[in-house]
Amino acid sequence: MATNGYSNAQCNGDSLEQLKHFKTTNGVVDDVDKFVQKALELTIREGLEKIKDRKTPVINFKTPNELEKCIDLKVYDEPENHEMLLQLCQQVFDYSVKTGHPHFFNQLYAGLDPYGFVGQIMTDVLNPSIYTYEVAPVFVLMERVLLKKFCDIIGYENGDGTFSPGGSYSNMLGLNLARFSKFPQVKEKGMRNLPRMVALTSSHCHYSNKKNASLMGIGTDDLIAVNTDERGRMDSADLERRIVAAKNEGAVPIAVIATAGTTVLGAFDPLNEIADICQKYGIWLHVDAAWGGGVMITDKHRHLCDGIHRSDSVTWNPHKMMMAPLQCCVFVTKHPHILKECHSIHVPYLFQQDKTLYSSEFDVGSKVIQCGRKVDALKLWLMWKARGTNGLKRRVEKAFENARYLSELVRKREGFKLVMEPECTNVCFWYLPKRLRNTKWNLNNEEFCREVAAIPPRIKERMTERGSMLVGYQPLGNLPNFFRMIVINDQVERSDMEFVVNEIDEMGKDL
Amino acid sequence: MATNGYSNAQCNGDSLEQLKHFKTTNGVVDDVDKFVQKALELTIREGLEKIKDRKTPVINFKTPNELEKCIDLKVYDEPENHEMLLQLCQQVFDYSVKTGHPHFFNQLYAGLDPYGFVGQIMTDVLNPSIYTYEVAPVFVLMERVLLKKFCDIIGYENGDGTFSPGGSYSNMLGLNLARFSKFPQVKEKGMRNLPRMVALTSSHCHYSNKKNASLMGIGTDDLIAVNTDERGRMDSADLERRIVAAKNEGAVPIAVIATAGTTVLGAFDPLNEIADICQKYGIWLHVDAAWGGGVMITDKHRHLCDGIHRSDSVTWNPHKMMMAPLQCCVFVTKHPHILKECHSIHVPYLFQQDKTLYSSEFDVGSKVIQCGRKVDALKLWLMWKARGTNGLKRRVEKAFENARYLSELVRKREGFKLVMEPECTNVCFWYLPKRLRNTKWNLNNEEFCREVAAIPPRIKERMTERGSMLVGYQPLGNLPNFFRMIVINDQVERSDMEFVVNEIDEMGKDL
Repeated sequence: MATNGYSNAQCNGDSLEQLKHFKTTNGVVDDVDKFVQKALELTIREGLEKIKDRKTPVINFKTPNELEKCIDLKVYDEPENHEMLLQLCQQVFDYSVKTGHPHFFNQLYAGLDPYGFVGQIMTDVLNPSIYTYEVAPVFVLMERVLLKKFCDIIGYENGDGTFSPGGSYSNMLGLNLARFSKFPQVKEKGMRNLPRMVALTSSHCHYSNKKNASLMGIGTDDLIAVNTDERGRMDSADLERRIVAAKNEGAVPIAVIATAGTTVLGAFDPLNEIADICQKYGIWLHVDAAWGGGVMITDKHRHLCDGIHRSDSVTWNPHKMMMAPLQCCVFVTKHPHILKECHSIHVPYLFQQDKTLYSSEFDVGSKVIQCGRKVDALKLWLMWKARGTNGLKRRVEKAFENARYLSELVRKREGFKLVMEPECTNVCFWYLPKRLRNTKWNLNNEEFCREVAAIPPRIKERMTERGSMLVGYQPLGNLPNFFRMIVINDQVERSDMEFVVNEIDEMGKDL
Repeated sequence: MATNGYSNAQCNGDSLEQLKHFKTTNGVVDDVDKFVQKALELTIREGLEKIKDRKTPVINFKTPNELEKCIDLKVYDEPENHEMLLQLCQQVFDYSVKTGHPHFFNQLYAGLDPYGFVGQIMTDVLNPSIYTYEVAPVFVLMERVLLKKFCDIIGYENGDGTFSPGGSYSNMLGLNLARFSKFPQVKEKGMRNLPRMVALTSSHCHYSNKKNASLMGIGTDDLIAVNTDERGRMDSADLERRIVAAKNEGAVPIAVIATAGTTVLGAFDPLNEIADICQKYGIWLHVDAAWGGGVMITDKHRHLCDGIHRSDSVTWNPHKMMMAPLQCCVFVTKHPHILKECHSIHVPYLFQQDKTLYSSEFDVGSKVIQCGRKVDALKLWLMWKARGTNGLKRRVEKAFENARYLSELVRKREGFKLVMEPECTNVCFWYLPKRLRNTKWNLNNEEFCREVAAIPPRIKERMTERGSMLVGYQPLGNLPNFFRMIVINDQVERSDMEFVVNEIDEMGKDL
């Protein structure tokens, strides 16, 4: 055993107590099976049980320097014993953010569905990679069922797609298919000798589109930013102007990337208007519904995605609004033959054509860019089985109700100001400490904007140190820093929304 | 509850028995916590316990048509009850391939390290995404430690990198950095107006390189295939000839992609010779050590990667030879500033520059293309802590010893013929049934080759139906179908190697 010289008690007395409990109830942990059992108990208690208590801190924050002293992260030549391993596991839990806690509102994922969690663990123990039916038969068929379901919900009649390692990756697949459908020779010949290509997306789109344009050899300059309206939605008149302008310059618009649920404001681009324009000019329409896709399983909010069936491809991350465990991302297209032609190549060692037991159409690896691919379907499937579509629908509706309730609270409360009425479950607002509340609200006043912008970082610092909740903030265009609350977790109640405004006020009023 | 009309007993009597056991020992499963507990017990028994018994089938094969009748994969509006969910979980286990079974030799991953498994489950329950320190503090530091360790092993003094969702993806990062280092303007301007670029790799390289060349707008035609020697290693003289030829045509060679452990033969390209050439012509050297990287933690076999420290970037998948759970893939480069310049863009809502509690250098998202990224470090870290580098070293050495023993068996046994002496733990061989053993071995004899090629698919069919083991096969260039045995799992013993040749002989001798 490596002696690391770290004193656990120094950082965390509680966890030592719990480890003692382990040892006294079951004797010395001395073989692998017992270790696994103990570690599972620890995982359930720290990961599933503790977050049920709202008094558990969302984060026990340490700076990088401090944290390095709390956990011995180095790896050594010699193994650690089971007691030390359990202590290390405990420390990982102690200093990690509880993203399943009802007061984690920081990102576009939150919560922990226990059925999804079980699906994850089953995947872990089976440890499959998915490319051929031969090594992942159940998961090949399971993916087909789920992808078909997403296509049905979107309104693609004979669509297909794949699970992917992220929304950014899915958007890249969309852009790749768009380019290939216009210039199939790009697969062999590359972009040289092809005309200048441009893609268009709103100025509020996800940053992955820029990164993808760079990676694919298009370049960020040829990702054209379309104006948005006052609520952050793509201005379709401006879209058409920019398409015409690009064509007049001799460029070929290969894709319009619309967003259903923007990252900051949660805006839904007007898909029908955009689809009309894409149809008129013969341009591939990709919809990035990574965040907002979840509205489509509700009756009440699915109108936000009206027109999405007219698109050519869609990004949808069930790990966001639907609360599947990370990572769970879907890409679908209404042109399955393009998907396959664009990505398939001849790989005799993997996709044998002389297989006798099943048709090679079940070897799904030929329709993706990856070779080995993690199975992300089982957790979603088990969760869906356990909740039913109706259960998932209620989950999304509840998040919307909570977000509406929060915006009412913000609208009414002194010192709070909504950036806009939310379309999605993003609730964006400014907060003013007492001393600023008598100043006239004027975003043209530079000094005022500086004052307003300085508040969220200071409150964020305090909430992080208290560990009471996590909420993000950012500027947007000319708007100074504001809070962005994201509501997803179905364990969140109205009282949590009240907690958020009270907590911000308490931390901030005297700043 | 949806009644699905499927009879479980029809497909699988055993699992029903086990489910009864669940219900009788603990009463009716009626709440979520109990369900989770039962599902975990099922997972441990089906996933960890059963594979300890070699008599457990590696696969209970059903064709797609049959399998659809064995599990009701559809999702419904209404939820299923816990009893039905447990039954569905049981069915998933029944029909999934046991990749952790000691007789699974089909792919470049195998086995299930229990410590790695625990690390996975901890990750699942914490459900983190990694881009900022704020939401993944422990994992940001943990990744730094591990990436530093990989750089140290490779011999990069001040390297950096990232975990990635696959070896294909890591190879793409290498090619992207190579292009950017030569033409930084590609990020904004794309590939138009830039000269023709080519990348060079051996004809035995992984197919991801082709897919990446297409995606990145280079095109497969400009991925130049270099000849290999008789053992499948890149011919460095041919590499230089092709570089010179490309330059004479006015093309710019941006990258040489060498392979350390090819997919089929397990060949290691001569890295020092290749590095000399890359140095001479100023070309980025990327080494795809996804498979063979593991040799570097041993003293005995690390010479296979001699010269790798002279490369510019490396792909290394610990989920392959090191037996970390899937997915666990590393990309490192000796040029961290290029990594960051190539991938970073301004994202105010995520990477706030006015954060007060820690420096933005800990927001690792700015050095990758992805936004959300799954945490793949914890499982590797815990496994490394539990095994020590020495334990991992012994694991790799044992796989080599088993592979050497298998090749001895193959060399001596009638009806078996080695394709070549293995460099890695890939053991490639032909098998001849009795009726072909008296024919003169002549690969120029077309009829003979056809006969030889027809054998592996038929044996594969039989082994799949028996479920006794899984081994892959493929042709290679002009060589007819041969078996490719991959040895990784540290639970594999010499007797398992004997089992493999006996089993093939038994299934195939009368074909």
